[in-house]
Amino acid sequence: MTSSEDLVPDISAGVTTPAGFRAAGLAVGVKASGNPDLTLVVNDGPAEVAAGVFTTNQVKAAPVLWSQEVLKQRRLRAVVLNSGGANACTGPEGFQDSHATAEKVAAVLGVGAVEIGVCSTGLIGERLPMDKIIPGVDAVHAALARGAEASLAAATGVMTTDSKPKQAALTHADGWSVGGFAKGAGMCAPNMATMLSVMTTDAVVDADSLDKALRAAVDVTFNSLDVDGGTSTNDTLLLLSSGASGLSPDPAEFVAVLTAVARSLTRQLQRDAEGATKYVEVTVVGAIDDEQAKQTARVVAEDNLVKTALFGSDPNWGRIAMAVGRSGITMDQSRMDIAVNGVTVCRNGMRGDDRSLADLSGTDIDVHISLGMGAGRSTVYTTDLSHDYVEENSAYSS
Amino acid sequence: MTSSEDLVPDISAGVTTPAGFRAAGLAVGVKASGNPDLTLVVNDGPAEVAAGVFTTNQVKAAPVLWSQEVLKQRRLRAVVLNSGGANACTGPEGFQDSHATAEKVAAVLGVGAVEIGVCSTGLIGERLPMDKIIPGVDAVHAALARGAEASLAAATGVMTTDSKPKQAALTHADGWSVGGFAKGAGMCAPNMATMLSVMTTDAVVDADSLDKALRAAVDVTFNSLDVDGGTSTNDTLLLLSSGASGLSPDPAEFVAVLTAVARSLTRQLQRDAEGATKYVEVTVVGAIDDEQAKQTARVVAEDNLVKTALFGSDPNWGRIAMAVGRSGITMDQSRMDIAVNGVTVCRNGMRGDDRSLADLSGTDIDVHISLGMGAGRSTVYTTDLSHDYVEENSAYSS
Repeated sequence: MTSSEDLVPDISAGVTTPAGFRAAGLAVGVKASGNPDLTLVVNDGPAEVAAGVFTTNQVKAAPVLWSQEVLKQRRLRAVVLNSGGANACTGPEGFQDSHATAEKVAAVLGVGAVEIGVCSTGLIGERLPMDKIIPGVDAVHAALARGAEASLAAATGVMTTDSKPKQAALTHADGWSVGGFAKGAGMCAPNMATMLSVMTTDAVVDADSLDKALRAAVDVTFNSLDVDGGTSTNDTLLLLSSGASGLSPDPAEFVAVLTAVARSLTRQLQRDAEGATKYVEVTVVGAIDDEQAKQTARVVAEDNLVKTALFGSDPNWGRIAMAVGRSGITMDQSRMDIAVNGVTVCRNGMRGDDRSLADLSGTDIDVHISLGMGAGRSTVYTTDLSHDYVEENSAYSS
Repeated sequence: MTSSEDLVPDISAGVTTPAGFRAAGLAVGVKASGNPDLTLVVNDGPAEVAAGVFTTNQVKAAPVLWSQEVLKQRRLRAVVLNSGGANACTGPEGFQDSHATAEKVAAVLGVGAVEIGVCSTGLIGERLPMDKIIPGVDAVHAALARGAEASLAAATGVMTTDSKPKQAALTHADGWSVGGFAKGAGMCAPNMATMLSVMTTDAVVDADSLDKALRAAVDVTFNSLDVDGGTSTNDTLLLLSSGASGLSPDPAEFVAVLTAVARSLTRQLQRDAEGATKYVEVTVVGAIDDEQAKQTARVVAEDNLVKTALFGSDPNWGRIAMAVGRSGITMDQSRMDIAVNGVTVCRNGMRGDDRSLADLSGTDIDVHISLGMGAGRSTVYTTDLSHDYVEENSAYSS
């Protein structure tokens, strides 16, 4: 079986690499800046199987409520996404705006609105300029295409504070592909950075298998990225299968390829987290179970004292130990080892090798925590807490 | 009944305001800087009732393990506290150091070591310089005194990155008093800021009542301060009763006075949080119960996107709504109102009054969240997330 870690997706390719998909992204006037702000991805079939994961935030944006509802049929013909406005905390009128957007896309495609997913990202609490979006749908529909340029345009239309578009695709040796794009920088964080992603495949996969594969891939990729613990009102990931390759992959192979593409997108999100100067992998091993390992890794990844120390290139294991101790998991401090960039600075809960041996001057930092309690393990991807993070997030909406 | 909110403690008085207590603080060489680093508080009785609360962190410093053990007898004759070293993650040898410190204090006082509380604060993972601490106990014992100077010296000896000593005292009209000092800037946060506090009273209070009163006071004061979610390995609060006034207060009156002094200390901690430029009160009302209200207030208080917005004087209610939604409580977004400095910027989960009406240019910010679900309420005190926070916490140990 192929391991997802051994697969290297192509980041010059994206959402139209799988057969059966067209896409486009344009500036239609939602953003005052004139930057691209509307993306459309269309599944030309023959199949139209879909799966999705959504924010766990109880304050859900209108497009999330819409997309969750239509996804109950596990079929999507298209996804329309706008940047420049989150359409969150906009009440019943905001929901009508999402509905009207879906109806418009359905009309131009000649299908039903229940086959259209809707995503939005931007400032919370403002209504969308529907006088821009409705004619914008006509324009973006007219621009639909396949190929590298179309994939890139689709990835660009969803950008907010992202500094670059994020996409990836991978074609299995048997001939089927997975592609996709993403935007954001964490599960909300920083700034207004809703995480939106559309992934596509031309593999023949039934709805149950597609859903299962998506959840398996997301668990170790998007859901293991934690820049600052935020969870946006708008986070959405939709996976569409056209079945256009006519090929039915081995389920494990499909998960491996899907995970590889999702991991590439996740790493691109991590690298583009606003203000980040360090890219940090927190790995916890030896927990009672995987869930406790992930909980520990998350608390460490979100701890501001740990994050500021890493910004200062300081292997301050005392702060890491403090964060582990407050994570609420089953532990024994005398069994805990902490290694930073390969140097075991804490051994058996006490000072280990000299902290000056740990070189944190580069951009990549590996924090490895061994609890010695069981076989549970998990890795969480995060960043440091820098001056630029504070600057970009304090200056955003004012 | 007196409300604790109406009582104004005297911050030029402190731990020796109640009769029966002597204190001292000196520089004995634990800190390389030559600043004060050893404090001793002695209860001369006639009673020696004690209560305490400790960190919930599972990684506990040696002095915490020691003090938790001896406090089982609910009697303390003295508390010895050092700054300049946390004695955390130091293994069995570190525990022996705490034990030896207690034995030395017991010897000079002619009592048993089980009557001596021990507290430490400073960098994690380093052994204490016992060659400084043991003779230091003789010096600080020789300096024991009553009065304003002695109280201030005791409050000064525990300072780490604190910019000023923190103390308060209040004498009830009936003639009994409560006093105390504290150090730190949150429950760990920021920096190495362990929260240590010793409080004293000359009221006659039995052990059960003292413990109950302490927990009631702490819940709405120290445990409602949340600078960055940290929980130190060393957090300790010890309350000692000498009974020297001979007066037995009404239990509710005692809680009110104790709470007033604890609140004064808490506000001093909040005001001295490193890097803070804004002092924020997050109040949640209308939750299902008080516990859910506190959970919501904590998540909002710890949210980096909220904290950076407040640093930028930005009433960004969308981020507050996002934090409420991810707090895991029972809610309905259409019932949620959010007011910032008195302006209801979010009403029924949607945009309310114009955000430009909310003036956040001052140092004090009031965030008031109404959930409309029940009668639960809670207030949490926090600060913003500023450049200085990042600077001070990234530059500390390297």
